[in-house]
Parts: sequence; structure tokens; C-alpha cells
Amino acid sequence: MRTFITGGAGFIGSHMVDALIDQGPLTVFDNLSSGSLDFLKDHLDHPNFNFVKGELSDLELVVKSMAGHERVIHYASNPDIARGMLETDLDLREGTLLTYNVLEAMRLNQAREILYTSGSGIYGDVGTLPTAEDFGPLLPISFYGASKLACEGLLSAFCHQYGMTGYVLRMGNVVGGRQTHGVGYDFIRKLKKDSHSLEILGDGTQAKSYVHVSDVIAAMLFIMANTSDPVNVYNVAADDVLDVTSIAKIVITEMGLSGVRLAYTGGDRGWKGDVPQVRLVLDKIHSLGWQAKHTSAQAVTASVRAMLSEG
Amino acid sequence: MRTFITGGAGFIGSHMVDALIDQGPLTVFDNLSSGSLDFLKDHLDHPNFNFVKGELSDLELVVKSMAGHERVIHYASNPDIARGMLETDLDLREGTLLTYNVLEAMRLNQAREILYTSGSGIYGDVGTLPTAEDFGPLLPISFYGASKLACEGLLSAFCHQYGMTGYVLRMGNVVGGRQTHGVGYDFIRKLKKDSHSLEILGDGTQAKSYVHVSDVIAAMLFIMANTSDPVNVYNVAADDVLDVTSIAKIVITEMGLSGVRLAYTGGDRGWKGDVPQVRLVLDKIHSLGWQAKHTSAQAVTASVRAMLSEG
Repeated sequence: MRTFITGGAGFIGSHMVDALIDQGPLTVFDNLSSGSLDFLKDHLDHPNFNFVKGELSDLELVVKSMAGHERVIHYASNPDIARGMLETDLDLREGTLLTYNVLEAMRLNQAREILYTSGSGIYGDVGTLPTAEDFGPLLPISFYGASKLACEGLLSAFCHQYGMTGYVLRMGNVVGGRQTHGVGYDFIRKLKKDSHSLEILGDGTQAKSYVHVSDVIAAMLFIMANTSDPVNVYNVAADDVLDVTSIAKIVITEMGLSGVRLAYTGGDRGWKGDVPQVRLVLDKIHSLGWQAKHTSAQAVTASVRAMLSEG
Repeated sequence: MRTFITGGAGFIGSHMVDALIDQGPLTVFDNLSSGSLDFLKDHLDHPNFNFVKGELSDLELVVKSMAGHERVIHYASNPDIARGMLETDLDLREGTLLTYNVLEAMRLNQAREILYTSGSGIYGDVGTLPTAEDFGPLLPISFYGASKLACEGLLSAFCHQYGMTGYVLRMGNVVGGRQTHGVGYDFIRKLKKDSHSLEILGDGTQAKSYVHVSDVIAAMLFIMANTSDPVNVYNVAADDVLDVTSIAKIVITEMGLSGVRLAYTGGDRGWKGDVPQVRLVLDKIHSLGWQAKHTSAQAVTASVRAMLSEG
């Protein structure tokens, strides 16, 4: 089976390439805006590896590049939720419209399967209320969440109309080596500038599930191998949550620092559009037979070590 | 309060203008693609009435035309679900992107309230399973349903980010005078061509709720007057459902015909993308204090009489 991976040079995408490269031909389609060929340097000469540098907004190029591929794994999207709050059409352009192009290219190429990374943002801000896959109504508070919801709907319509199979993973916060965004990433960057004081957005009590990228890749492969509805929707996360102050302490410890003053900006959330509390119900994926190997604290610790070793 | 009504020259929109014209200044924004100034002929000289012929895709014009309006009622969208299955980006262009422009224009003009007509299509094809407002997952099978879902998400994000109030009405099939689409409309057209035989798409057992446009307008005014969450989501429909064969019989009776042969195309649905069975749970709007005055059969009968009298 030939696999087409959008955003395949990015954080999660490059880990998926690591997992799939020996299983058959694959094509990475990436504009290298936040991804990097460095993440794929071990594979550039592999006979299964193909790379197209291009924009998903170029439908003609996407259609042409996807020819002959049966499976699509679609990661590419605006990775910066906060920036999406300043440009109200950013996630529409770099999420919804690009996902439409991917799906339309699949239709024209008769590709059969698509995996899409949705997120907990579609559930909106419901406090500590646990959200299972059948939770509703879905009232996202960010344009990022709104775009994820729009993409789920488009994927569902294409799958139902054209007999494709869709895998929709609503993920907690993914962490690990090659991260290019995220709270741990930000803390490392800030502490490298000033090791005496660490600014923490909000009051530090924001608590979400952090899932290690190795668990995410395993969950994706597991779901694709074990489900077959037209559209298969699964929450994917670690089994617990971790608050932001705990993440700060992990980063400080892993950097070998001490006596760092934690300077909270205050308020219950880091920025407008942030959902401060996320509680994903994982019963559905547990019943299917998958569970994360890392707790949130283990995932964050591993990701901080990886980021520090990457420099 | 100044009200800005997109699609205000269309089927539902023109009935809303009838209801609001004496209450304060209002502006109808319409491209007259399926709407008509004939529907508004009683109001053209009213001091409260303003009209802008324009495209919602022209953001600059929308922003300028909306200046000074506090409330937006947004009806404009592709009205032809079946055509949206042939052009996979039609509902994205004429639904999602136009709704984004309306919301962005509201942000720039600091408008405070928006009413949006969503539809049962967001619930997907779940057979005769009753769907309440908290039903999930939402897996639309048509691009029309996917676009409605995308618009709900965008509206939710804008309302939460900018302190607007949103009213989202997930409607059954709306029928009444000035209809420009729909099964009753199609049957009349077909029987005027050939009064001996009537082609019925599917097997005629498709059953949905048909709600009279007067009930819809009443429900909209009632919800705007009696709710105040950031986003208020309500199913709106008649209390029962009606199958397609029954609609055919109503049309035949109202046209004074007899001995018409019903020629079924067969299959459980009229066309791919059609959801053949719709069962909207109405407990939420009943609890709020509103109920439709017409049954589905009464609503369809009234609509057929109105369409016949309109010629």
C-alpha cells in the first residue's frame, strides 16, 4: 500500500514516517514551514521514500502528487492555535480549505483511506466535564477547534459519498522529540533566556492530558488496523492529566536548575481561546484494546529530555 | 435595534422581513440568485426597509453594508443540497466561506447577535434514532451537512471570542409560500408537466418533519427573546414526521387530480447524500415554551396551497 503523508516533515508526521518507511512506498508532502527535512534525514535515501515540497493550497499539485496512493495520513495544518486567534481566517485557510483539497484529491485519485488528526478543541470549554466521542453539542471556542470540527464534517461527507474509510483521532496534547510548539517547548526557550524566573501564562492550574508521540503513532496504527466503519472517531490521550505548574517543575528539574521563581500572569487560562481544562474519556479506545504506555508526566519528561538533547 | 438579514429576499428570509419590518430599521442583503424582490414588494417603500444587492463573498461590501447593525440574521447559503453533491466545493464556497465573512464583518462592526439556520443534516444518517441537540458524534453524509456543521463551529468560536450571542436553529424541512426548492415544490412542477404519472425518488418511505415557515419565524423570534447563552442551539421542527408518499397524495389532492400513477425510482433514499429518516428530539424547545402549531401534514398542505395560488 502506498501512503501519502501531508505534513510528513513535521513533528508527528516525521515520527509516522519512521514507523512506516520499511512497510512500503510513501510520499511526504510538506511545505517545510514548520517541518524540516532534518527530521527525515535517516530516510532521504531509502528506496521507499519520496518527497514533494509544495503547498496543499495548490490542488492541481496535490492531485498529481497523490496519484497511485491508496492511503492518506493528513497532518498538515496551522500548528499555532494562539496565532489563529489574531488572524480569524488563518485556521480556515490553513486547516479547513487545505483539508478539502486533500479530500478532493483523494476522490479524484480514488484513494481509499484517510487518517485525520482532530483534537480536543472541538469539544469547547466544558470545564472538567469528561468528553467522550459522543459528546455534544460541539461548541469550540477557538478558530483552531472550529476548523478541526469543519474538517471532521468534510471527511465524513467524503467518506460516506465515495466509500472511503476515515479515521478521526481527537487527540490530547502530543509531546515528544521534534516538537515545534507547546508549553514544554516554550518553558525551555524561556529558561534558556532567563534561568532565574519563569513566566507562566495563567495561574498554572490548567490541566490536560499529554500524550507521548510514540503512543500517538501506536494508537494511529492500531486504529487503522482494527476499525472499519466509514468514519471511526476516537479520543487518544494518556490516562491522566497534568497541570501547567507541574510541567514547569519537570522542565526546571530536567534542565538542572533550582530556585527558579515562577511568575504567573494570572487568570484561569493562558490566553483567550485556550481551553484550560481537558478531560477526554478513553473508554472507546481502551475497549478496542489500546492504552497509552506513558502517563502525562512521563510523556512530558521524555519530551523535555528529547528537546534538550536536540539542543 | 437594527437588523441585517442575509438572504432576506429568499424563502425564509422574506417571511422574517414580514415579521420584523415594523419593529425597526432593517437591511436585506441578497444577491437575488434564488430570492426575489417580488417577495418583498409590500415593503420596498417602508421607511424601515433597506436593500443591498451584493455577494457575501465580497467581504468589504459586507463590512460596509453591516455598519450600524446590532443584530444579524443569516439565511444566505446554497439552497440546493443535491447540486452540492455534484460540485464538492459548492457548500464550502456558498456556505462555510460566506458565513465566515458574515461573522468577520460582525466582529469588525461590533454587532452583538447572530441567528443562524443550521439543519438536521449535521446529525448524519442515523436511521430512525432520535437526535437531540447533544447528539454525537456528528457525521454528516452530505457536503451541505458538513458545511452547516462548519458554520456552527465558526459561529461558536466568534461568539466565545468576541462576546457575541449566537442562536443556532437546527431545522427540519421548512415549507410554505415562496418556497423555491423541496419535495412538494418538485411534485407540483412534475404534475403540471404530466398529470397522469408522478415520479417519486426512492421508495416513498423517507420520513421527516416538515415545519411551516410561520412556525419557523415564531420559533426564531421566541428563541432570540428567551435565551442568552453565548451559543444557544435548538432543534426546530413539527412534532411529527410525514413520509414522501403521503406528500405526493397531498399534492395530488390539492391539485384536484385523481388516478395519478406513482412511479417510484426505488431504494431507501431519493439521492445519494439525502438522509431518508430524520427524527429531531424537540424536548429542549418545548421546555423553553415553544411548540409548532402545524403538524407536518398541515404544514405541507398549507405550503402546497400557497405554492398553487402563487402559480
